[in-house]
Order: sequence, then structure tokens, then C-alpha cells
Amino acid sequence: MMKRFSVLFCLLFAQGWLCAQNTDSTQLRAIYNEVLSNGQCHENLRVLCKEIGNRISGSENAEKAVQWGKDLMDRSNFDRVYLQEVIVPKWVRGEKEELVIRGDKIELNSEILALGGSVGTNGSIEGKVIEVKSFKELEELGKQTIEGKIVFYNRPMNPALISTFHAYGGCVDQRHAGASEAAKLGAIATITRSMTLRNDNIPHTGSMSYKEGVPQIPAVAISSVGAFNLSKALKSDPELIAGLTLSCRMEPDVVSHNVIGELKGSIYPEKVIVVGGHLDSWDVGEGAHDDGAGIVQSIEVLRIFNSIGIRPKHTLRCILYMNEENGNRGGITYADMVKREGEEHVMAFESDRGGFTPRGFSVDGSLQQLQVIKAFEPLFEPYNIHIFKKGYSGVDIGPLRDGRICLVGLVPDSQRYFDFHHARTDTWENVNKRELELGAASVASLIFLVDKYGFEEIPKMNDFKD
Amino acid sequence: MMKRFSVLFCLLFAQGWLCAQNTDSTQLRAIYNEVLSNGQCHENLRVLCKEIGNRISGSENAEKAVQWGKDLMDRSNFDRVYLQEVIVPKWVRGEKEELVIRGDKIELNSEILALGGSVGTNGSIEGKVIEVKSFKELEELGKQTIEGKIVFYNRPMNPALISTFHAYGGCVDQRHAGASEAAKLGAIATITRSMTLRNDNIPHTGSMSYKEGVPQIPAVAISSVGAFNLSKALKSDPELIAGLTLSCRMEPDVVSHNVIGELKGSIYPEKVIVVGGHLDSWDVGEGAHDDGAGIVQSIEVLRIFNSIGIRPKHTLRCILYMNEENGNRGGITYADMVKREGEEHVMAFESDRGGFTPRGFSVDGSLQQLQVIKAFEPLFEPYNIHIFKKGYSGVDIGPLRDGRICLVGLVPDSQRYFDFHHARTDTWENVNKRELELGAASVASLIFLVDKYGFEEIPKMNDFKD
Repeated sequence: MMKRFSVLFCLLFAQGWLCAQNTDSTQLRAIYNEVLSNGQCHENLRVLCKEIGNRISGSENAEKAVQWGKDLMDRSNFDRVYLQEVIVPKWVRGEKEELVIRGDKIELNSEILALGGSVGTNGSIEGKVIEVKSFKELEELGKQTIEGKIVFYNRPMNPALISTFHAYGGCVDQRHAGASEAAKLGAIATITRSMTLRNDNIPHTGSMSYKEGVPQIPAVAISSVGAFNLSKALKSDPELIAGLTLSCRMEPDVVSHNVIGELKGSIYPEKVIVVGGHLDSWDVGEGAHDDGAGIVQSIEVLRIFNSIGIRPKHTLRCILYMNEENGNRGGITYADMVKREGEEHVMAFESDRGGFTPRGFSVDGSLQQLQVIKAFEPLFEPYNIHIFKKGYSGVDIGPLRDGRICLVGLVPDSQRYFDFHHARTDTWENVNKRELELGAASVASLIFLVDKYGFEEIPKMNDFKD
Repeated sequence: MMKRFSVLFCLLFAQGWLCAQNTDSTQLRAIYNEVLSNGQCHENLRVLCKEIGNRISGSENAEKAVQWGKDLMDRSNFDRVYLQEVIVPKWVRGEKEELVIRGDKIELNSEILALGGSVGTNGSIEGKVIEVKSFKELEELGKQTIEGKIVFYNRPMNPALISTFHAYGGCVDQRHAGASEAAKLGAIATITRSMTLRNDNIPHTGSMSYKEGVPQIPAVAISSVGAFNLSKALKSDPELIAGLTLSCRMEPDVVSHNVIGELKGSIYPEKVIVVGGHLDSWDVGEGAHDDGAGIVQSIEVLRIFNSIGIRPKHTLRCILYMNEENGNRGGITYADMVKREGEEHVMAFESDRGGFTPRGFSVDGSLQQLQVIKAFEPLFEPYNIHIFKKGYSGVDIGPLRDGRICLVGLVPDSQRYFDFHHARTDTWENVNKRELELGAASVASLIFLVDKYGFEEIPKMNDFKD
């Protein structure tokens, strides 16, 4: 019956017959109406993607993005807008990235991308290629086989997993830790199959890190089709030689900023609810899904509150974090400030899984907090929001975890995310306006409800009808 | 707890640890694994879209598609493959489609598409343009204003509705009945804003029909941006003249076919479960989402049953219907045969809402049938299938409705459907492989369960663990 009521309700409301019987339903409908009819997040994303573009920490574009974010918030009638200084690492891809594979009868030229944080090759390096699927296999081959070679990690993401994030989680060790694991056995470089479920010629970069005390060797990503071709070539000629040229490098840390905007709480101004995403992106494509989407959705949440006249009880703080991709310095710096100032945070919300149709919320909090959020489920039913579960929230807000704050991540449909993730295809054209807007409305709706009810008591259906 | 069990279960299964405790969960997992790991539907769709392309009823391409479907089924180890003759209408777009809008200081050239079924202009026609938003507005303007004019229907789809199909339903009267409504008042042609929620320059065609006893006037679709520009131009110059040239025409009916393939039931071979979509498409783009997706998913369902060794109890019949878009002759012809032969049909399933991430099922059947399908919900939870509701099923299977059969439609996420619907952008590139595959797996899973349990009793959770 709830369903029928809601559907009928929405239809009536959509036709302008305001129904005052059900305040929370009415308010959610107003939030969705505002975004779907007057949303600005898609146009904001266009400007960020097309007029600035990709924006790795420490780059000129990152600074342009900081200014863009601040200017946009300044124009948005927020109560307070400010920058928070963050010291960020600066990694530069440089001009040259080349991988050539040569054998007696074979020559392969594959488009590659250095992994973020990789050292360069200081000229060119050459070596035989050894394919492995796991660190276990690498270890079994041992130093006698690996020394002086280029290790090729080729374990694909498991297509049978329904959540592509689970498939990613099952593979990303190769990218993140592969260089040091190979270097321990004397390898001179690594080539890692891109973290994607598509078969195409597009390499995907991403973070990697070096273990202390292990030689730092260059690490690159090759596309899924490039990996297929290389693996096939190795089967016919195991003596293949790879030549690798990379001019990427680390430069000294530089000053950057988190961008912060606030609506001041009407009842608990000293208690904060955070909504955010990360402003930096990898240095290819436009950082549209990762995480331009989260940025413009977070700004949109505050805009919606203003537009439809919701005055939050708690201070609602929108944070555009700097440096999620390769250091999380923005998230750490913000959490340090919170601890230092002794600020009380009720909830921190992050959107960083792409601007796709929202499916629900992933809650990293207490059982009570989870139960409060689950209690809102019927209100979200007309919007096809159905996932309310315990789980991971987001990188930027992670450092806020203190045993009291409720951390929540938006869970969009994940099927297309890794088509674009960290690749030159992560562009504005690949973000659907309505999917992006529905995400913003879902985040705004949950924040509206948590702001109204808090986490002290688990609300009941009847409460929603006040 | 069910959820945790399922997640754990899936992870175990995905790693190859077959768990025999829960037969139905195991079977669904096997179905999803098969499609996501070895699926052929995406490649089949590529062939249909790229080697044949669009395929309006009566066209050479439609006949190629019939042959393609039959050949594919012949190679697929089905028990029986055959064609059913269907007499279809033949509408031909012709060579020329041109709309030029001229005023004192304005000239607009907008890409247009004749609506399917429209008469041509027999040379060119010219007239002033009158914009209206509804038939009510048209009627109020009356014959004195409309006579001799070109009526421009410009009511947009309502973006605030969550289901884009509801928004479509609220607008499509303009396209379908607009010509006759305008002709009743003496209009000489109609221009209808395309049924889409995107702002772009791409016109969308679709079916229209003429009322008996009313003059048949030409009818075209203009893109959403074209409609915006025309509306704006009319505000500055209400005397604008539109010149329209169309060479589209109806030709005599021709012979075409439904393509049918079967797996014979092991226990009830005389009782049939149908799964299908429509093979014809509009004559622009590639008919990828509409309804190449449904076609390849339906074929995939039978392939999965064969591949993982599910022998259906009932006869499982895959039908590629001809002529859904402009006549539904395929659906009508099939249903006539069923009645004539007195065949018993348990369920008919249709996939015709695009190859997007599946969200659930729309059930046009008895309360008991709906309750049986709802009872399967926990089994679908690991796959994020959450909509189990009474509702519309599909055009092709509609004529089978007899008060006993259960009609079911696949409900995919609807946000992007009308970006591509009936437009030149409905191409294979715009279908995501995993989203398409998840749809096929969801259909196969529901059919597996209905085939196993039937509709006589509502199964309980414990039944699934046999």
C-alpha cells in the first residue's frame, strides 16, 4: 500500500497538487523535483570538465579547480566559503611514455600510462617480459627467473562479480603493490593490465606506492586488449624484449587547498554534517565520474537546501577535498583540523563512485546509525533507492572515523564505472544528466532526513507523517 | 542475515567452491556466471547492429534479420527452430526529408524525421506555424486559427518523473494522434517535439496513426533543441513560414516472419513459456536498445539453459516478433495461432525497454501469479533486482492476454532509454555489455524459477533450499 500511495502521491505532486499530509515524502519529492527540473550540477560539471579538465594534485589545473570551486560557492549564497591549506605531493607524467615489444617476428606498440607515483626510466630500459597472474606466482618463480626482467601482471577483473568494485578489489594489488613485489626479486619494471572489465585499447592509470627499502622501479598500465596481445605474443615467443621509456617524476610537495562551503545550522550550529567528494583527478580524461560527479553533487546538495528553503538544524558543510587520488592529504588535513578544534561531526557523506543511477547508501557506522538510515527506506522507495547496508564509505572521509561519526557513501550502479575510471574516456559526455541529478537528489534527501531526525532514536513510519 | 549469507555464498561460489546447500541460489549464480563470463548476447547484438543495422518491417534488412535470427538459432542446438509467416505493413521513408523555417530575419534548418506511417508532401508544402502544448490548447484555438497552418506540438517530457516511461506516456499522444487532431481543424502538417529528455539536435521518430474520416496530413519529429529554437523564433516572429518536403509513403503489405526457437519441456511439453522481444526496428540507427537488446537476451536465455544443463519442465519458446513498431502484426499473428491451436501458455516474458541494468519485473497477471514472482525476491537480492510489481509487460505479448497466462516485462533502469529511442544514436556502442548481460541473466533466472515452481502455489523460502 505504501508503494501505491507513494506513486499516486508523486503523480499528484508532479502535477502541482501539493499534499500536506506527509511532510517527509513531500520534502523528498521537492528535492527530487528541484534537481530534475532546475538542477545545475550537470552544467557545473561541464565547466569543470571542459574549461579546466583533468587536475592532478599540484598541477596548474588543480589550482584552477580550487578557484572554480570557491567562485562557484561564493556565487551560491552559502553562509561561509573558505579554503583550507593542504600540502600535496606533485607527480608529473612528463612528455614521453613508450612501450615497444620486440621479438623475432613480432613488434607490438601498445598505448600505456605510467602509474601515478612511478619513477621514470631515466632514458630507456629493456628487458625480457615475464607474465604472472599473482604475487604467489611471482614468488614461486623466484629471483632466478625474475631478476633483470620486466614483470607483466595480467590477472583480469572477475566479470562474474556483480559489484564491479568487488572485482576491482580483487585485482588492484597488482597495480598498487606490484612494483615493489617485483623489485624485491630483482625486476627492473612492471607492466600491469588495466583495471577495467571492457576489452578495449584504453589504458587506465591509478595510484601505486613503493615499499621502503625496496628499489623503486618504473610501473605502467597497459590496456586490456594490449594485455591480451602481449600475453598471446609471449606464448609464441617467450624471448620477447620490452623497451620502456618514461619521463614521469616526483617533484617537491606544493601548497594546495580543500574548498569548503557551509550552511550554518539553525539549532546545532556547532554540530557538523559533511558532504563531499574529491576535486583532484588523475591527469588523463576530465575526471568526470572520478570525481567531478561527487564534487558537483555535493555543491548541488547545499544549493537545493537553499533553493527550496530547507534550513538545516546542523551546520551543513560541503567539502571539495584535494588529493584523494595519490595521498589523501586533503582528507587527512581536514580530519586533523576537526580533532584539533574539537568539532563535533554527526555524519560525513561522500560521493566518489561515479555519476551513475543511485542505488543506495553504504554505511560505516554503529548498528544504531545503520538502523536509523534503514528506517528511511520507505521514503526512498518511489526513487528506486533500495540499498541500505553496512559497508565502505569513501577515502576522503575515512580519516574522520572516531567511533562516533557516521560515515556514509553513495552507492550508484557500478556496471559502467570501470569503463572510464582513470582513463582518457572519463569525460563529461559519458555522464548522463539524469543519473547525475538523481544521485544529487538522493544525497540531499538522506542528509535532510539525518539532519532532521539525528541518530539518537530510530524513527518510525508514523514519524514521517508529521 | 539472508543478505550476508548470499554475499558470502556468492563470493565462495565465484571462487569455485560449489555450495550444494541451496539449489536455487546455486542455479541463479550459475546462470549469472555463465552470462557474465561466457555471454554471447553482446557479440550477437554487434552482428545484428553492424552487419544488418536498422530493420523496419517489410524492408530488405528486416528479411536479413529474420534469416540472421533463424541461422543463429539453428546453430544454437535448440530442439526446434521455425518461421511463422506474418503479413506486415511496409512504410518507406524515401529520399527526401526537409524542413526550412523562414521569417523576415530568421532562417532555421532543423534535422527532422518523418513519423512512421506519415504520408509524404507530394512536392513541398508551406504554411505558418502555430505552437501548442496540448490537444486542449489546439481545440481552444479552433478551426479559425488552425486551418491551413502547420501545428507544432511542443509539450516536453516531464523531467521530474522518476520513470522516463511515465514521462513518455505523458507526451506521446502528440506524436501518435497529433496529425489527425490537427487535421480535424484543417491543419496541413504537424511538427512534433521529439520524445526525449535530452537537449540535443537529434530527432526521434516513432509510430503515428490516422483516424478514419480525417484528412491524412504529413507529420514529422523535430529535435528538442530544434523545438526550442523554433519556439524562440516564433516568439520573435509569429509570421514564420515553414516549408516541408517529405517523400515517405505506404506501400502494399508484404510477407515477413516471426522467428521461433524451442527447448522442449521435459515434463509438460504441451505447456509453453515464451520469452521474446521484437526483431523489427525503426529505420534509423541500429535498433540496438529497441529492441536488439531484447532479441539477443531472449536467445541468450535458451543458450544459457543449454550451456549449464537446465532442462526446462515446460516448453521454452523464444520468439523474435516482427512488426512491433508499426502494427504489432507479429504479436497478433502469434496469439491467433495459440488460440487456434488451443495451446496452453503459462507465462510470456518480454524484454523491450533497452539493454540497461535490470531493476526488476513488471507483472501483468493474477494476484496469485504476482505473489509467486514476489516470493522469488530474496533469491534476486544478490543481483540488485528489487522491483517486483504489478504493471505493464510488453506490446508483442499483449495479444496473448486471456485471463490465465502471466505476462511479464523486464524492467531495466530507464534513465538513458529515451536518449536513444527511435533515433540514429540507438547504436551498439551505446549498449553496455555487462548491463545487457545482467538483463539476460535476470530473465533466465525468473524463467528458471517459474518453470520449476509454476504458479499453483506460492513458494516459501525453505522451498528454495531443497
